[in-house]
Amino acid sequence: MSSSSDLQSSPEHVVAKRARISQWPAVPMTRAFEAIDRIADKFPPESKGYPTVALTNGRVIAEDIRAPENVPKARTSVKDGYAVIAADNLMIRRVAGVATAGQPWDGILQPGECIRISTGAVIPEGADAVVQVEDTTLAGYDGDVEVAINILIAPEVGKDIREKGSDIKENDVLLENGCELGPAEIGLLHMFGIQNIEIYRKPKVCVMSTGNELVESYHICPPQGFIRDSNRPQLLSLFRSQGFKPIDAGIASDNIDSIEAAIRQASEFASVIVTSGGVSMGEKDYLKEVLRNRLGFEISFGRVWMKPGLPCTVAHGKINNLPVVVFALPGNPVSSYVCANLFVTPFLRAMAGCNRPKQPVIKVKLAAEMRLGPRPEYCRAWLESRCGETFPIANVTGNQISSRLPSLVGAHVLLVIPQSSTEKTQLEKGELVDAIIISSLF
Amino acid sequence: MSSSSDLQSSPEHVVAKRARISQWPAVPMTRAFEAIDRIADKFPPESKGYPTVALTNGRVIAEDIRAPENVPKARTSVKDGYAVIAADNLMIRRVAGVATAGQPWDGILQPGECIRISTGAVIPEGADAVVQVEDTTLAGYDGDVEVAINILIAPEVGKDIREKGSDIKENDVLLENGCELGPAEIGLLHMFGIQNIEIYRKPKVCVMSTGNELVESYHICPPQGFIRDSNRPQLLSLFRSQGFKPIDAGIASDNIDSIEAAIRQASEFASVIVTSGGVSMGEKDYLKEVLRNRLGFEISFGRVWMKPGLPCTVAHGKINNLPVVVFALPGNPVSSYVCANLFVTPFLRAMAGCNRPKQPVIKVKLAAEMRLGPRPEYCRAWLESRCGETFPIANVTGNQISSRLPSLVGAHVLLVIPQSSTEKTQLEKGELVDAIIISSLF
Repeated sequence: MSSSSDLQSSPEHVVAKRARISQWPAVPMTRAFEAIDRIADKFPPESKGYPTVALTNGRVIAEDIRAPENVPKARTSVKDGYAVIAADNLMIRRVAGVATAGQPWDGILQPGECIRISTGAVIPEGADAVVQVEDTTLAGYDGDVEVAINILIAPEVGKDIREKGSDIKENDVLLENGCELGPAEIGLLHMFGIQNIEIYRKPKVCVMSTGNELVESYHICPPQGFIRDSNRPQLLSLFRSQGFKPIDAGIASDNIDSIEAAIRQASEFASVIVTSGGVSMGEKDYLKEVLRNRLGFEISFGRVWMKPGLPCTVAHGKINNLPVVVFALPGNPVSSYVCANLFVTPFLRAMAGCNRPKQPVIKVKLAAEMRLGPRPEYCRAWLESRCGETFPIANVTGNQISSRLPSLVGAHVLLVIPQSSTEKTQLEKGELVDAIIISSLF
Repeated sequence: MSSSSDLQSSPEHVVAKRARISQWPAVPMTRAFEAIDRIADKFPPESKGYPTVALTNGRVIAEDIRAPENVPKARTSVKDGYAVIAADNLMIRRVAGVATAGQPWDGILQPGECIRISTGAVIPEGADAVVQVEDTTLAGYDGDVEVAINILIAPEVGKDIREKGSDIKENDVLLENGCELGPAEIGLLHMFGIQNIEIYRKPKVCVMSTGNELVESYHICPPQGFIRDSNRPQLLSLFRSQGFKPIDAGIASDNIDSIEAAIRQASEFASVIVTSGGVSMGEKDYLKEVLRNRLGFEISFGRVWMKPGLPCTVAHGKINNLPVVVFALPGNPVSSYVCANLFVTPFLRAMAGCNRPKQPVIKVKLAAEMRLGPRPEYCRAWLESRCGETFPIANVTGNQISSRLPSLVGAHVLLVIPQSSTEKTQLEKGELVDAIIISSLF
């Protein structure tokens, strides 16, 4: 048996000689976010050009789109009724013709005349107001044909006319660079017949799990000590729900060579690699070593002062001269999911060109008191609207231990719970806290 | 020229003899919602059975899913450290073996011994606590092998041990009938190796536009009086964004036979048909007539006291003995979109089995004063978080005229603005109002 005094400079992967206290300072959340923002600057959004089928939900546009024409292109009627000359006032009018949407009336309206007109139809020359049909009565007809009408309410000039360009002026910015396409944006582009737009490329992201204890989830009865890998399907689903097409990079076993090989291989498919497991203080936790010593990456942070997610690690560097970022998330399923929401999806959305990459934050009211811990905590909660309550009520989803996956189920938000201080060790029932919306199902 | 006194009972489609005031009462919103709920009862969710690939985002499960086993299955370590016997207290311990996740240690721990253990590994028999590695020092080693350690902080019984079933107990309900699958739910199912789940069938929905003035949106330069159809791509995109696979039923021209034929044809593909246009007081507005007189449908309502969306019509009946519901939305692009969000998507989500079919509602603060109108109004607004403000600030998206599609762009919510009353004709800047969240991009 020898003394332990000569162990300081020994390789980390010799168990007896490993560091017993993490060499990685746990950085505060603000520092972690700043570090990720700095990495994001190295991964700017890339244009994908003008693909033929671009008008689908979730695409991000890479240019300002301007209106190629006025809407409406001509003066049109807002109502079903009669196009009139306002100065004629309340007299009985001769119905001189019909203008429907798609079939304009070509003449010039004369005093004493009106044109039967429907919503969206072009206002005939000479007319300066529309009287809605409800404000008229029939004054004479010939068979099925209206010949004259009474106007019951005196028309004002311009009444119920949409002026040319009043909805949208030619050359107005319709959609801004970085805007994500949804139904309204897609409708607007179709209105102008705009089919070709420049869009951003979606970043490629690979998801892998690490751990000798993991088996694929289709295993019916894993042997004692083994568990099914749920992190990978969960993270794949998360990125899919955000509009990405993540690549499944499988399970890497806990040894330095395997992990290095898996990351190198993943980098051939994606510049963003998301791993889970292998980042803590365990003897098989090789991620940081691979990233720093094998790949020569810069580790932006190796721990974060947060709960869950303390061992969360982010590193970046180059493989085959291409920039690669690795989000090495903790292995606990809740930790990896919380860290993926806080760190990875905003990064991917920024890389995809979105001008609002971060999740929205709202204030919510705690349904019950909460003890504060030494670390800031991101508690999963579901929101409830209660009658007479101004704020959504936040109900924490049961026991928040980081292994307990049901704490994510039905969670709409991550509550941002501050760390305890000498002044404050508890939040009271009814206190307001920030909540990061993480579920589009909410 | 004949008098108009004999017109009362004439067919509606003779222009001169049409009703000049809508025969349809404008029902209040509460009545409209109730009517739709009653129709929904006729379209209950249908099980799709157990398809092989069910674990994808947006599926709705049609059964309660219970945990087939405990999690963890055995007592496991929460930390990287040493499994110990707590009663041994602070003495130096002999490291008798190693347990990692996936490789349990088979022996029985004896007093004075400990087992090096990593997070997730099974606690060996005899051990009753875990000491994290940070609270130990090396006391002796042999080559690379740890032989003895010092415990720096006295362990308590149960410390850092996840008891069997402490995260999830066998037979606990994991997911409830009607729950929509997202990343967390998918992760949980994978954790248990549950691949076959009963899910609900997504309802089929057909989208069509009506109007002689409409051309397909790929037209570069529609002739005077014609406009590109933007409603259909917009509604298709909306239903897609909600996880449905809507069917594009094209444009029907404004005549009774065409509309009847189009609806009959659509009913061969879908039990929910969404049209836009043809429901107002125009002479070419044949939808209600087709629905009632040609198809023999019951019209639940033919107008709604709301803005935009006054002419919104909902009818249901049977075609070829199969139940069909038609949401005949107004033709203005904003009106059709607002009505689709308020009436159609909750209906589709209920039919899809979702246990929370309606959009969530939150309180927001008005950025500016608003004049109240005679009808309740659903204003499009985007939300902004301002520092020091407890509520999201709601900014109305410009001119709210129902033809102005840009008022939808970037809109996160529909503000629920009440109608004016003798007591109140205006909402002040800073007042709180309800906001229906309509954008998952928010």
